[in-house]
Amino acid sequence: MIMLNETHDPSLQSWVASANESGTDFSIQNLPFAAFRRQGTDEAFRGGVAIGDQIVDLAALQTTGLYDGLAGKALDAAAESRLNRFMDMGKETWSALRLALSRSLREGASEQSQLETCLVAQADAEYALPAQIGDYTDFYASIHHARNIGSLFRPDNPLLPNYQWVPIGYHGRSSSLDVSGADFPRPCGQIKAPDADIPVYAASKRLDYELEVGIYIGKGNKQGQAITIDKAEDHVFGLCVLNDWSARDMQAWEYQPLGPFLAKNFASTLSPWIITTEALAPFRTNWTRPEEDPQPLDYLDSDQNRQQGGFDLKLEVLIETKKMRNEGTAPISIGLTNFDYSYWTVAQMVAHHTVNGCNLRAGDLLGSGTMSGPDTGQEGALIERTRGGKEPVDLGNGEMRTFLEDGDKVIMRAWCEQDGKRRIGLGSVESTVLPKL
Amino acid sequence: MIMLNETHDPSLQSWVASANESGTDFSIQNLPFAAFRRQGTDEAFRGGVAIGDQIVDLAALQTTGLYDGLAGKALDAAAESRLNRFMDMGKETWSALRLALSRSLREGASEQSQLETCLVAQADAEYALPAQIGDYTDFYASIHHARNIGSLFRPDNPLLPNYQWVPIGYHGRSSSLDVSGADFPRPCGQIKAPDADIPVYAASKRLDYELEVGIYIGKGNKQGQAITIDKAEDHVFGLCVLNDWSARDMQAWEYQPLGPFLAKNFASTLSPWIITTEALAPFRTNWTRPEEDPQPLDYLDSDQNRQQGGFDLKLEVLIETKKMRNEGTAPISIGLTNFDYSYWTVAQMVAHHTVNGCNLRAGDLLGSGTMSGPDTGQEGALIERTRGGKEPVDLGNGEMRTFLEDGDKVIMRAWCEQDGKRRIGLGSVESTVLPKL
Repeated sequence: MIMLNETHDPSLQSWVASANESGTDFSIQNLPFAAFRRQGTDEAFRGGVAIGDQIVDLAALQTTGLYDGLAGKALDAAAESRLNRFMDMGKETWSALRLALSRSLREGASEQSQLETCLVAQADAEYALPAQIGDYTDFYASIHHARNIGSLFRPDNPLLPNYQWVPIGYHGRSSSLDVSGADFPRPCGQIKAPDADIPVYAASKRLDYELEVGIYIGKGNKQGQAITIDKAEDHVFGLCVLNDWSARDMQAWEYQPLGPFLAKNFASTLSPWIITTEALAPFRTNWTRPEEDPQPLDYLDSDQNRQQGGFDLKLEVLIETKKMRNEGTAPISIGLTNFDYSYWTVAQMVAHHTVNGCNLRAGDLLGSGTMSGPDTGQEGALIERTRGGKEPVDLGNGEMRTFLEDGDKVIMRAWCEQDGKRRIGLGSVESTVLPKL
Repeated sequence: MIMLNETHDPSLQSWVASANESGTDFSIQNLPFAAFRRQGTDEAFRGGVAIGDQIVDLAALQTTGLYDGLAGKALDAAAESRLNRFMDMGKETWSALRLALSRSLREGASEQSQLETCLVAQADAEYALPAQIGDYTDFYASIHHARNIGSLFRPDNPLLPNYQWVPIGYHGRSSSLDVSGADFPRPCGQIKAPDADIPVYAASKRLDYELEVGIYIGKGNKQGQAITIDKAEDHVFGLCVLNDWSARDMQAWEYQPLGPFLAKNFASTLSPWIITTEALAPFRTNWTRPEEDPQPLDYLDSDQNRQQGGFDLKLEVLIETKKMRNEGTAPISIGLTNFDYSYWTVAQMVAHHTVNGCNLRAGDLLGSGTMSGPDTGQEGALIERTRGGKEPVDLGNGEMRTFLEDGDKVIMRAWCEQDGKRRIGLGSVESTVLPKL
């Protein structure tokens, strides 16, 4: 059972005033982790925890000697330049640091004056990837996405027979993962137009985003030893937002028989903050499947997974075009969906990934796959939203989009919000398409 | 142009007598790199260079202070526990260290007495992966393999239309790569028999090897900046032998639409030694393609690639069953092929991989894909050799094999041998299938 504890109490307030504002992602109930330093400096990156519009600098906190015991050990690891060692320590350790931070940051905390010396304004920070990501695996967990995209790539056969049995996934590229703010040039490569006889070398004309949840593995497993579904969540550190950029024209030509490759590996961009699974506890949902669908094999099934396997995590994608920037108008939202639409849960992904003995390491990343919902407006990729480029989206400012144009900035956000609970959020991942080199 | 230099002179002899034996893989013309330590000790792993049946301990050599200039800088990096920093220094640096070692190890070298203090017998050594492999990409570069396997998975459509245009590749798993000698349990997972209505959880019954060449990236490229085919070889450090174990029953059920995943990521095993591309210079071959086949797009084509893009590198796979071990009989050879059968060259793989801006890092690994040749006996996987399991292989000792059984050790070897040239080889990769856990 996923239990709530004092850190989840919705009535908790922080002495950091901005953490108490109703719209903030970073209330005291959240306490997400990142690797940061002061912008424009040569400082070492170190771990930080967001609170309101501030960051608790964990390296600075470490020098205060305030925490001891398990929280102190956790702090030593979390203060490093990457969170891998902290992630590998396991959930009791993560929890000890969270509890200590929650207590230190509450209104009336006796440590307030010491903690105040450890704050850095988010406005002054820059971020690195929070972990060294050894392997990146991308799943395909939204059946709506699988149907939408399948109907474009294989009109006669959109949903393959394995989809409802196997949490389909494949390995992505770790070298080209980067953190929010990392822009990239439009990729070039081999493209064959549907009506052409032969392929050509060209810049992608069908560049797209994919709105995904990123899942960071905490404690790893030994090669050869599967993680059972009942233990799977113990190995999950937390979630982020992931934009898995995709060149659809390359993908269509290259992806058979071994899957997407150059269509995806030029760039994937991650939000800097990791929201821990512990913070997400109040927003867990049950996981069900239509009775007429195949039910999961035993190794993918458990009572806890059915009762609390899902996450009510809202996901949104926005576009800011060059014109919007020039005219000073706000980005416009072009997709709003929820991780709860996932056909497979995070625990099922972890159990499946390791059932053959494959070893996950601390800091490894799983992508949920594009998290489209069932309805129009809930698509997590332009190719779905525009029906394969046939129905352009009206951006409302005189611009239309089928696929992304140079200068388009894509912004993705994720947050949890329910009546009677404190909102927590992930912040955003933002990145701009630059012209081809 | 790939040039020969004094290190390639076939008349060179070493003062290490075992390096001058005609059958050795590790003649003075070879000088391959590994990461090693004395077996059963807690010593740190460090770089080593094979010569005959000995290893030059590069950390010990470093303490002699014998090398300076570029060779000295190269040695400092190559002596580390992993070769990544050395690999990232580029081919002039690799070449400087090779030349210095060749001169020090020649008959009559004045440094003989100092070098002698740096030798460790290979019989006393154990190995680690020679590099931290950030990303592992597996290609599919033998058209014979693609046709063989395609005809089993897609009888109506064995060779897909993109094959002769695109060097097809996909991302593999880096966490489960390990070095020769690392055994692994038979993987379990989801399997659907062709005549069954639904899948079951079971141990793989169709466990197979794949005989591949592993290609280590040396100097990497910056994200966004393609490596052109003319520069591609400058980024390749060297080659090894790779066994990309495959569970064919899992593969058949899971691989559509995103490619192989659990069928491959439970284990891949690498030979400890990396044979440098410089050492392989005398064995380069021209690369041609049947006139009736599509010719490569410009970004995959160059004069040098046509003249010297290939490698005459022989590849062999052998099986040693439990019965053979019990009876003290030698492993038997069940496949003999050559990297020269590749439909795509290493330079084409590198140029293609980066054409979209994907960044390669020092120590990254490319697999060639199963390197089957056109004829019977040249298959690099059992599924091909046994025509999908329908024609068992007779091992000649009363045993037959369709797929691998528990206790089977698979041994792969690679070497270059031509009249008038000194043989150089890679040693072997060996690993045993253990019973499922």
